[in-house]
Amino acid sequence: MNISHIEHIGIAVNSLDEAIPFYENMLGLKCYAVEEVKDQKVKTAFFMVGQTKIELLESTDPEGPIGKFIEKKGQGIHHLAFATENVDESLSELEEKGVRLIDKKSRKGAEGLNIGFLHPKSTLGVLTEICGKE
Amino acid sequence: MNISHIEHIGIAVNSLDEAIPFYENMLGLKCYAVEEVKDQKVKTAFFMVGQTKIELLESTDPEGPIGKFIEKKGQGIHHLAFATENVDESLSELEEKGVRLIDKKSRKGAEGLNIGFLHPKSTLGVLTEICGKE
Repeated sequence: MNISHIEHIGIAVNSLDEAIPFYENMLGLKCYAVEEVKDQKVKTAFFMVGQTKIELLESTDPEGPIGKFIEKKGQGIHHLAFATENVDESLSELEEKGVRLIDKKSRKGAEGLNIGFLHPKSTLGVLTEICGKE
Repeated sequence: MNISHIEHIGIAVNSLDEAIPFYENMLGLKCYAVEEVKDQKVKTAFFMVGQTKIELLESTDPEGPIGKFIEKKGQGIHHLAFATENVDESLSELEEKGVRLIDKKSRKGAEGLNIGFLHPKSTLGVLTEICGKE
């Protein structure tokens, strides 16, 4: 597996309407897309920061993953996504090495990318995503 | 303030001896430096991932910031650091805009960089660092 860069950092927020102005007006970043990912029960907002995106995540359902995260921990960094060329190959390689997977096979995430999550119990407490075009 | 990229992502771990092999053997990244930052009561290990560093943080004192973080929340992502040209100018600009600061003036962090932290109550739950050579 060849990780080229950090594809994005997912940050759980209570409200995109509150969070987007913070990232734009305080930090001077520019929101270039807002997208709903129904499968994940979130609305997302993206900012490019060099090579890496910041992906703000607002829950659309208290029973969804971000709704539960915010209820338990409050707003904050939710996950870290590494870019690789082929997500299924990377997931297979990680599983062979003993990493516990949430997704055994890749699925479609925001921006049409293939994604797969590793289990934070296997990744020293960091919810880790593998992400790529293939 | 002009943020050029994400300088690093700080991750609190129980033990560098356990965490470095995970990042090297599982994710295929390469630890290029280990450094103690006595002021922060941590030992750090650095990995380059594209433009951005992963900074693993092991506490050297349970009363230090990482010791307290791990006691309260366990291992996981601790902070996000944005690169700017001049840290003091960036901190002043943020304070003028109403962001609460932890550091009113920059101080020296790992790798000899100037750093300053913003308060997570002002940054939607994300402990945010501004980081740069000047």
